[in-house]
Amino acid sequence: MPKKSSGSVADTNRASYSEYEVEEFTIDEEPYYLPIQDEIEVFTAAYEQKIPVLLKGPTGCGKTRFVEYMAWRLGRPMSTVRKGNNQESDGEGKPLITIASHEDLTASDLVGRFLLDGEETRWVDGPLTRAVKAGAICYLDEVVEARKDTTVLIHPLTDHRRLLPVEKRGQILEAADGFLLVISYNPGYQSALKDLKQSTRQRFIAMEFEYPPREQEAAIVHQESGVDQNSADLLARLAEKVRNLKEHGLQEGVSTRLLIYAGNLISKGISPRRACEAAVAQALSDDPSVQRSINEIITSIFE
Amino acid sequence: MPKKSSGSVADTNRASYSEYEVEEFTIDEEPYYLPIQDEIEVFTAAYEQKIPVLLKGPTGCGKTRFVEYMAWRLGRPMSTVRKGNNQESDGEGKPLITIASHEDLTASDLVGRFLLDGEETRWVDGPLTRAVKAGAICYLDEVVEARKDTTVLIHPLTDHRRLLPVEKRGQILEAADGFLLVISYNPGYQSALKDLKQSTRQRFIAMEFEYPPREQEAAIVHQESGVDQNSADLLARLAEKVRNLKEHGLQEGVSTRLLIYAGNLISKGISPRRACEAAVAQALSDDPSVQRSINEIITSIFE
Amino acid sequence: MPKKSSGSVADTNRASYSEYEVEEFTIDEEPYYLPIQDEIEVFTAAYEQKIPVLLKGPTGCGKTRFVEYMAWRLGRPMSTVRKGNNQESDGEGKPLITIASHEDLTASDLVGRFLLDGEETRWVDGPLTRAVKAGAICYLDEVVEARKDTTVLIHPLTDHRRLLPVEKRGQILEAADGFLLVISYNPGYQSALKDLKQSTRQRFIAMEFEYPPREQEAAIVHQESGVDQNSADLLARLAEKVRNLKEHGLQEGVSTRLLIYAGNLISKGISPRRACEAAVAQALSDDPSVQRSINEIITSIFE
Amino acid sequence: MPKKSSGSVADTNRASYSEYEVEEFTIDEEPYYLPIQDEIEVFTAAYEQKIPVLLKGPTGCGKTRFVEYMAWRLGRPMSTVRKGNNQESDGEGKPLITIASHEDLTASDLVGRFLLDGEETRWVDGPLTRAVKAGAICYLDEVVEARKDTTVLIHPLTDHRRLLPVEKRGQILEAADGFLLVISYNPGYQSALKDLKQSTRQRFIAMEFEYPPREQEAAIVHQESGVDQNSADLLARLAEKVRNLKEHGLQEGVSTRLLIYAGNLISKGISPRRACEAAVAQALSDDPSVQRSINEIITSIFE
Amino acid sequence: MPKKSSGSVADTNRASYSEYEVEEFTIDEEPYYLPIQDEIEVFTAAYEQKIPVLLKGPTGCGKTRFVEYMAWRLGRPMSTVRKGNNQESDGEGKPLITIASHEDLTASDLVGRFLLDGEETRWVDGPLTRAVKAGAICYLDEVVEARKDTTVLIHPLTDHRRLLPVEKRGQILEAADGFLLVISYNPGYQSALKDLKQSTRQRFIAMEFEYPPREQEAAIVHQESGVDQNSADLLARLAEKVRNLKEHGLQEGVSTRLLIYAGNLISKGISPRRACEAAVAQALSDDPSVQRSINEIITSIFE
Amino acid sequence: MPKKSSGSVADTNRASYSEYEVEEFTIDEEPYYLPIQDEIEVFTAAYEQKIPVLLKGPTGCGKTRFVEYMAWRLGRPMSTVRKGNNQESDGEGKPLITIASHEDLTASDLVGRFLLDGEETRWVDGPLTRAVKAGAICYLDEVVEARKDTTVLIHPLTDHRRLLPVEKRGQILEAADGFLLVISYNPGYQSALKDLKQSTRQRFIAMEFEYPPREQEAAIVHQESGVDQNSADLLARLAEKVRNLKEHGLQEGVSTRLLIYAGNLISKGISPRRACEAAVAQALSDDPSVQRSINEIITSIFE
Repeated sequence: MPKKSSGSVADTNRASYSEYEVEEFTIDEEPYYLPIQDEIEVFTAAYEQKIPVLLKGPTGCGKTRFVEYMAWRLGRPMSTVRKGNNQESDGEGKPLITIASHEDLTASDLVGRFLLDGEETRWVDGPLTRAVKAGAICYLDEVVEARKDTTVLIHPLTDHRRLLPVEKRGQILEAADGFLLVISYNPGYQSALKDLKQSTRQRFIAMEFEYPPREQEAAIVHQESGVDQNSADLLARLAEKVRNLKEHGLQEGVSTRLLIYAGNLISKGISPRRACEAAVAQALSDDPSVQRSINEIITSIFE
Repeated sequence: MPKKSSGSVADTNRASYSEYEVEEFTIDEEPYYLPIQDEIEVFTAAYEQKIPVLLKGPTGCGKTRFVEYMAWRLGRPMSTVRKGNNQESDGEGKPLITIASHEDLTASDLVGRFLLDGEETRWVDGPLTRAVKAGAICYLDEVVEARKDTTVLIHPLTDHRRLLPVEKRGQILEAADGFLLVISYNPGYQSALKDLKQSTRQRFIAMEFEYPPREQEAAIVHQESGVDQNSADLLARLAEKVRNLKEHGLQEGVSTRLLIYAGNLISKGISPRRACEAAVAQALSDDPSVQRSINEIITSIFE
Repeated sequence: MPKKSSGSVADTNRASYSEYEVEEFTIDEEPYYLPIQDEIEVFTAAYEQKIPVLLKGPTGCGKTRFVEYMAWRLGRPMSTVRKGNNQESDGEGKPLITIASHEDLTASDLVGRFLLDGEETRWVDGPLTRAVKAGAICYLDEVVEARKDTTVLIHPLTDHRRLLPVEKRGQILEAADGFLLVISYNPGYQSALKDLKQSTRQRFIAMEFEYPPREQEAAIVHQESGVDQNSADLLARLAEKVRNLKEHGLQEGVSTRLLIYAGNLISKGISPRRACEAAVAQALSDDPSVQRSINEIITSIFE
Repeated sequence: MPKKSSGSVADTNRASYSEYEVEEFTIDEEPYYLPIQDEIEVFTAAYEQKIPVLLKGPTGCGKTRFVEYMAWRLGRPMSTVRKGNNQESDGEGKPLITIASHEDLTASDLVGRFLLDGEETRWVDGPLTRAVKAGAICYLDEVVEARKDTTVLIHPLTDHRRLLPVEKRGQILEAADGFLLVISYNPGYQSALKDLKQSTRQRFIAMEFEYPPREQEAAIVHQESGVDQNSADLLARLAEKVRNLKEHGLQEGVSTRLLIYAGNLISKGISPRRACEAAVAQALSDDPSVQRSINEIITSIFE
Repeated sequence: MPKKSSGSVADTNRASYSEYEVEEFTIDEEPYYLPIQDEIEVFTAAYEQKIPVLLKGPTGCGKTRFVEYMAWRLGRPMSTVRKGNNQESDGEGKPLITIASHEDLTASDLVGRFLLDGEETRWVDGPLTRAVKAGAICYLDEVVEARKDTTVLIHPLTDHRRLLPVEKRGQILEAADGFLLVISYNPGYQSALKDLKQSTRQRFIAMEFEYPPREQEAAIVHQESGVDQNSADLLARLAEKVRNLKEHGLQEGVSTRLLIYAGNLISKGISPRRACEAAVAQALSDDPSVQRSINEIITSIFE
Repeated sequence: MPKKSSGSVADTNRASYSEYEVEEFTIDEEPYYLPIQDEIEVFTAAYEQKIPVLLKGPTGCGKTRFVEYMAWRLGRPMSTVRKGNNQESDGEGKPLITIASHEDLTASDLVGRFLLDGEETRWVDGPLTRAVKAGAICYLDEVVEARKDTTVLIHPLTDHRRLLPVEKRGQILEAADGFLLVISYNPGYQSALKDLKQSTRQRFIAMEFEYPPREQEAAIVHQESGVDQNSADLLARLAEKVRNLKEHGLQEGVSTRLLIYAGNLISKGISPRRACEAAVAQALSDDPSVQRSINEIITSIFE
């Protein structure tokens, strides 16, 4: 999907990987995305008004895919976009820089650091600085995991100033026009300890995501896993029932991604029951009684 | 708004960012600021008497904007300032160096550090040292988040000595005349753990900020977001009602900034209800019952 | 077992060790592995669909051996594999890079770091980066021990993107075709603190392992330790009984590995009772009453 | 007040700061200090007997000023000193090196460290080492905040040995004659966690400081803030009453420093009530009921 | 005892120390060791089968001495060894590398690190890597003290793979033939926090050590301290009685080592009672009542 | 007192300090020491038998002075020593290396580290390594404060092996003949957290120190402070009474050192009551009621 701008590197005659500069990573083919509500319009308005965006929602419900879709869409003229889905699109997407937050992510990891290089120290921009300079979308995933210094770092970037202090160089950057900060988190995980502070929250508009409705989810599973439409329907039905177990000891509902895995295994000839046991029951829980409940649902659907 | 003193750097033909030396960042155009009380007079007296200032108040109530306004105002002859608002002002503002505190901000981050550069180590002044040397306003945001070493570091700067020890160089700096330290924090966040020690507090005069009164807030929202006056009035009314929810599970009142976001979205054609849901209800809370209460207020105002 | 691709290094005339580049470590001789269920088929399907795999199970039940077997098997044409076990196989296995997780494993340990080398800093790829480039199987053992930054690092590698951000170089890698991430953990150890987050879990299909059934275990012990078939049978019987003690103060059942140790000692002339005391009773527990229970079982079996 | 021994550096045409080597910082003009008891005699005796001194007392009661005064006084012949206050004194004071303790102050921060400088590593003495070598007064402020390694480091300096081990250089320094270690802390802050250990305490004689009596405090406020004598009297009366609130929720009494701030604001034309609200009520507390009590006292005094 | 392979270095004319390369440290003279059970046979079998060994037992009961003895014994032909004790043995012992575990021991401390050396970084093998390459016995003392990363590091070394990943160099080492990992710990210290995980335990056979029986202990004390046989007998009797106090407030029994110290002091003319007070009563406890009980035993034995 | 072996360095014309290499610091003049019991004989026997020594006792009771005395005494022929006290002794003492333990003391601080020096890294021995090589007495003060890695580091130095592993250099040192490790701690401080582990304790003989009896203490105070004999007697009487307060809220008894301070102040003309208030009452406690009790004793003695 991404543009292999820096070329593809063949390592041996049996494996090859691709290598990109962070800010040259663009989504050039339209990602498969089924809109649920008016999320595309609201996101577009925020982008045009330079308002940072917070995406909330459970694991694997499509937040990352949505950001990829918007990066693709915002990178090209509206006329092109409106032509419809599944087209071979011309031109390239907007650069999208994704950063997975974690509790050890330091300010330097985001902004950059000095590296010793021969006879001089060379400054290397971090991904956030690259996004600020390139006018890219910067997607900071699972932001509640980040340390406070990371969270505070984005404050001047998220009010009217749009400034990034690069303290180690004694500089201040004013973000390029197209820059947009998008963060996400899963409200289900929030604890007193890892809450997003109000002084951070109140710098974003927020959009809530949920699992797609059954028919849409079946369409997604069919499209993404290559499984036949009937099995995709059954998998979407399974998801609905498993998500209802959430009140009965299941920590979180099954994600669309796991349904696609199940579809993938079925396509390769694994029996539906075994595929769902591995991709759903065993993947979701280690608790034998929860696994048993899920397996009963699997059996009832794939008799 | 800031002077692009080091020039603007065009990276590609579609995005461009600006880069400033920290101590050359001045506010050259008058920031939009509506005074509430005598805060401008008290701040001016403290500045002239070289008394450090502590600003207290909730998230997004205008503390940062006030400091920007004062930096602009104190940088030019009083005669120029008195001419009134909205003028195209001549000359430049006072340098303003803003530092966002966080629990991992080290003394070195403020004072400076040695960097290896080719055949020698080069000292790079940190933002506090730059402010001390340039006679700038140094604004240390959310100071209770700082580690104790940072807090203690400012002690000799905030009594009659106005000294900054630069221990790694074995030096002591006496601040230039125009230097003023301003710190801020949100008393609503204070816990036993993160209280400002008396030995620190008693080095500052303190000024309390609140959300602006409704009419002033409507004027601000109208001015800043570009939304029509009527919607701005309704948004200010919304703010008043939402802030009254604070006793009913809402952690903190809605900030003026979020009202401006809502206005921004409305200007782009998003319906007022949807705009307020994203910019107010979803932004403020993850608690469905709190969201419901806010949405009811939204519906009642934007029928 | 591994190919001594970089040659064997003779240090003195009495000892010699072997040294491999991480990504050249392949399993070239077929590991002894007795399949229990359809684990080979499911793993193969996941590999072909590029779905990451999570292996669950107790200590020493054969998870590592299974991964070694699959690395050997997936590295050669199916026709060769189907010929049966114990053959002298031609060609080489798939590269297998094993990483033992622990709570101090940093992102740099996995991705790589800059090393100062004479007049320049040289980048050295970490084992995960090597696996991504070489299209190897990367086996991350006891993953719940890892720090959050490590766990989060693998997120973009485990969805449809298959990307590894190399932040210190400002690069993104897209994994080579044969790359597969396999992680393992022991659900018996899981505590609230060290649970695998749902956002991580839901990126893997999961397979559960148990100790092998008695007859299979006896075959394994006989094969691996060189002890006679009768003693191997008795050791497998012992294992079964000791595992039943798990409800009576024993923290975890005896592993197949310890049975092999016991067999090893017996082959060297140590009496079966003494061998089992050292390899089973003393190895499993420091609690005298648990040791006594185990020793009673040992006495009853090896009268 | 300090000797600008290394010259004054003009940065721009509107601001200039001064820069001193740590050990060249002397108090050359007599600091304004009103003795309360026999503290000057006891300190002088301790200095002559090389006994380390511990100063106890609340925030802003004059401990730092006392040390500055003693540094000025001990640096010149007694005959000169006895001539009385407010004179233009000849000669220079004793070097005074002040170190603000905090919980991240390392032994290296005090003793010194190696810095890479071109082709060699250069040792840079820390402030304590400089004081030991220069025979200066070393004032370690708020010593209970220091880490244990810092506290232990001063042990051999504070018994008959007067030794400073410089472990990184494999050296031991014996202090120059005039060296004196002075530490301070606020007993009101002491908790079980941050108590000064007996093995440290019993290396110092201790002197207790209190706020000055009302008349003396009025004299100080008048002298230091430039406010008229009548307002200074009222401010001292205010202080007395506010300090009596300490049992009613106020964490610590108002410091003389804050009274001077209030005087400063009054001199600039801010009304006494507003000045006291900012410099006393708001500065001391965030608790509305405590603020109300203080404001009532302010109103009753400045009717 | 050890071979002074790298020569002895005379520093001044009154003191001289010896310096060895870690992997050249061999036990060349037979250590004095009295076998209690079949520990020599079991250890020898484990060594021949390449099974890692765990030694359990209280402080100072002879675990270290046993490992030294085995290193001496396994380093020479069996025929030589069988000739009996106390002989002047020919040839050299097996290299023995001892590592004292502690909670700050890092993986780098064991495996090695890069050191900057002039114009290049030079890799320096850690003690574990040296043992792996030299085919030495590596004795990891008090292993429960080690951090998890250290403990996990030895996992691939302790199963059939015998591999040591050297991640910083991107290499894997396969251990030389004579390599054996021996770990020890004291079960009496084990707490929930510092337990050896089952996944680690089940990689070792385990042998339990106790204090030697009275007659053997007397022989050891006589031999090692040079005290006469009668005093040695009395010291062994004392040990027996003191160990019975363990249920009455004594944390751990007296070690054979302390008895040897007492013997040492007696040989130098200190009275037996005083010697035992210093080497046993005061050494074991600070609790006056425990000391009193021990002193009563001392008095009753050395009347 | 110490030999100024590396010369005395005159910095300015009013202050001069001395600088020694750690291992050249010897006690050349006999320290004033009054033996209480047979501590000199027991220590001498331990030294000759190479047994490490643990000194227990309260703050300031003379442990450090005793070690200094023994270092002086063991450095010269017995015939010289026996001639009596207060003589001008010929020759030099034994090198004495004192290390103050604290919770951040690392193994590198003791053993040594690599320093970058121009084109090469240079190894610098730490104080423990210097002691091991020079055959010095190494005095590790307040050892319970040390981190576990420091404590464990001394294990191989304190059994029959007398080895110091220098892991960063891959070396092992065998201590020179005169090397002796002496550690001290204050049992009164011991908590469950900071207890000396049995595996460490049982490597030392232990000697308990107490405050000296009244007459001896008076003699010491008279000798050391220069106060007249009568005042010295009264100070010793004061000490006795204050120490009896220990059950009534006083954390620890007054040290001989503080009595000497009081004597010092009295010699300089401070009144005995004021001297004792500063050196005893205020120094010992911040608790007003404890201070009052002490002051009552002071008043009753110095009426």
